[in-house]
Amino acid sequence: MGRRARSAAPRVAGLDTDTRNGVLDAMAASLIESRDAIAAANTRDCVSARATGLSAALIDRLLLDASRIEAMADGLRQVAAQPDPLGVDLAVMRRPNGLIIRKVRVPLGVIAVIYESRPNVTADAAAVCFKAGNAIILRGGSEAAASNAAICEAMTAVVGLPADAIQMIPTTDRAAVRSLLGLDQMIDLVIPRGGESLIRAVAEQSRIPVLKHYKGVCHVYVDRAADLDMALAIAVDAKCGRPGVCNAMETLLVHEAVAEAFLPRLADAMDAGGVELRGDERTRALVPKASPASESDWYEEYLDLILAVRVVADIEAAMRHIDQYGTRHSDVIVTADSEAALRFTTEVDSAAVYVNASSRFTDGAEFGLGAEIGISTDKLHARGPCGVEEMTTYKYVIEGNGQVRG
Amino acid sequence: MGRRARSAAPRVAGLDTDTRNGVLDAMAASLIESRDAIAAANTRDCVSARATGLSAALIDRLLLDASRIEAMADGLRQVAAQPDPLGVDLAVMRRPNGLIIRKVRVPLGVIAVIYESRPNVTADAAAVCFKAGNAIILRGGSEAAASNAAICEAMTAVVGLPADAIQMIPTTDRAAVRSLLGLDQMIDLVIPRGGESLIRAVAEQSRIPVLKHYKGVCHVYVDRAADLDMALAIAVDAKCGRPGVCNAMETLLVHEAVAEAFLPRLADAMDAGGVELRGDERTRALVPKASPASESDWYEEYLDLILAVRVVADIEAAMRHIDQYGTRHSDVIVTADSEAALRFTTEVDSAAVYVNASSRFTDGAEFGLGAEIGISTDKLHARGPCGVEEMTTYKYVIEGNGQVRG
Repeated sequence: MGRRARSAAPRVAGLDTDTRNGVLDAMAASLIESRDAIAAANTRDCVSARATGLSAALIDRLLLDASRIEAMADGLRQVAAQPDPLGVDLAVMRRPNGLIIRKVRVPLGVIAVIYESRPNVTADAAAVCFKAGNAIILRGGSEAAASNAAICEAMTAVVGLPADAIQMIPTTDRAAVRSLLGLDQMIDLVIPRGGESLIRAVAEQSRIPVLKHYKGVCHVYVDRAADLDMALAIAVDAKCGRPGVCNAMETLLVHEAVAEAFLPRLADAMDAGGVELRGDERTRALVPKASPASESDWYEEYLDLILAVRVVADIEAAMRHIDQYGTRHSDVIVTADSEAALRFTTEVDSAAVYVNASSRFTDGAEFGLGAEIGISTDKLHARGPCGVEEMTTYKYVIEGNGQVRG
Repeated sequence: MGRRARSAAPRVAGLDTDTRNGVLDAMAASLIESRDAIAAANTRDCVSARATGLSAALIDRLLLDASRIEAMADGLRQVAAQPDPLGVDLAVMRRPNGLIIRKVRVPLGVIAVIYESRPNVTADAAAVCFKAGNAIILRGGSEAAASNAAICEAMTAVVGLPADAIQMIPTTDRAAVRSLLGLDQMIDLVIPRGGESLIRAVAEQSRIPVLKHYKGVCHVYVDRAADLDMALAIAVDAKCGRPGVCNAMETLLVHEAVAEAFLPRLADAMDAGGVELRGDERTRALVPKASPASESDWYEEYLDLILAVRVVADIEAAMRHIDQYGTRHSDVIVTADSEAALRFTTEVDSAAVYVNASSRFTDGAEFGLGAEIGISTDKLHARGPCGVEEMTTYKYVIEGNGQVRG
């Protein structure tokens, strides 16, 4: 499978923009045409999942109804409509000796995506990687095996898609992932998508470079110069908008000068949203119903209606906290003080650093980057939301007329 | 040491352009002022090296005379004179909701460089990493221990350099490298510089991302439409210019239609350069004095006056050979056929792909990128010559006025 993907890669890379976009549109049409077969396969997955006692939340993730199949097809069409990242000169250097050196954006080659329950990842990941001219190997979760196979079958039935450009590893083959992760001569990048344990396992076993996102322990720091109405609105959005996602706030830090004015209002708003507060001592002095936060709370990615709260002496202490406990995902300062804002955005070492806005915007579509295949908390290669452009690399193409170095 | 580097990183990142350049110029001056101490330390290293029976070639690599110390200082001044990669907006996105999203180039953080005999790497690597706003941990080879320590002492004596911005691991501490490679919470990138065994050992042990360059098995393909005089000049330059470096040619491929006209001339020129030829059967039919090439020759990075030669049926066969045996470093086509050139530059998956020029130009200075810390054969993060700009990453800085996602 690795060898087949490797040999498919130049054929995918060689397709022109219109052909790649046409294939993506045809895949969208094929998903719609195959919706009955996909829905039937998905029903089989859901029945098995219920039989094995999967939670209602996980079954909801698994479910594909007509509107979700339509949304998948829409996603493919949106990727088709995005600008082509390939064939772009990132730099051109004309050297004194006459050499013309172009730094050209090119596909990475072969990308493997290993993911868990949601079957729509099958279409999304394939689309983003293919748009960037890559061959792809998919490996989904066992609960969604029939759905994933049906989606993959519909997509690969499209005329114009090179053979082996999109391949799926059957989930029944348990040894396959481990051997896949050793194929560093065949595969250029592995992207794990799912829970922390999946990502750690892939990162530890892989001999292939991994683009990953561990946890999103995101902070909102309410500065002494914050507009407290704005801070409250941002905190509520960042915590309650969708608590189960990686760009949700997990810890709120508040400057001691505004803690007394802010925290009781925060407590009321969070109470209304059904959020449990866990505070340090100074927080609990102002919000008695908050339970005590332990050291481990500062590291916690709750992904739930729970919020850790800490009073800090100044911006310095807030940034130290973020450096020590954060995961370099998305962090926010709320302040009207432009010097404090500059300091925070300069010194906080996270993929996305916000001034006066919710952390919930860390997302490829919200950034205007189009479809996203994940949010990287790595610092090498790509950081933050990763879309089509991040699935590319570059090479230098040098044209001469006989130059030698001598 | 890792913790100290981590805490130095924001202080280095916070220095403005003039301060960083001033420190680099002051380091250059300090190297010149300390030249007697550096030369004396180097003499101790050379005496020990001779006593342990190190080869003359390796002792030459180790040697620092007055002109080489001057060259090191010059290198520092050149890095100071390069444009600052930091503080540049790589993209600015103004979103319909009023968010301003800037993709800003920032330092990587902490970089570790593990290298072998040449003591000038101490100054070069520190300069490139520091220019890009990073803290650095150096670990040199034991033969150069005294020289490296003296160079590091001269550089770190400079006023304005933050404490712990440049640290050196003593080579007497053998367990240190292994424990360093586990510090993925402290160090952002490891760059091994040296022989293949060092690089493989670092890549296998490291939990930190590694930017590496394995072997340079570079090819020159002489197409049927080649100007044979040009092909000969390029082949001689690529093989004989400096055979011990990674961008030297190791294998020459020649189209069967021009083999008869080209190979006898090549054989004479290589003979004059003292190069031993190893050919396939068809080559040996035209060049009887070539010894037979075995399968393993195609994989070989000779780094010596030896050249493998193969006659191929067409450009397709040449590219298949390069794909199978090459190392994705630098490969050349010599041709007057622009279609063949386009096909070669599109399909050959190497960091640098040349048309009608010698592979020997793959070098940061020759590309106009300034000082280089190595040549990456990886495809993630950075490819080809890596200089100051490749020692950076980016983050997204988002400014709002209270936006929430809802």
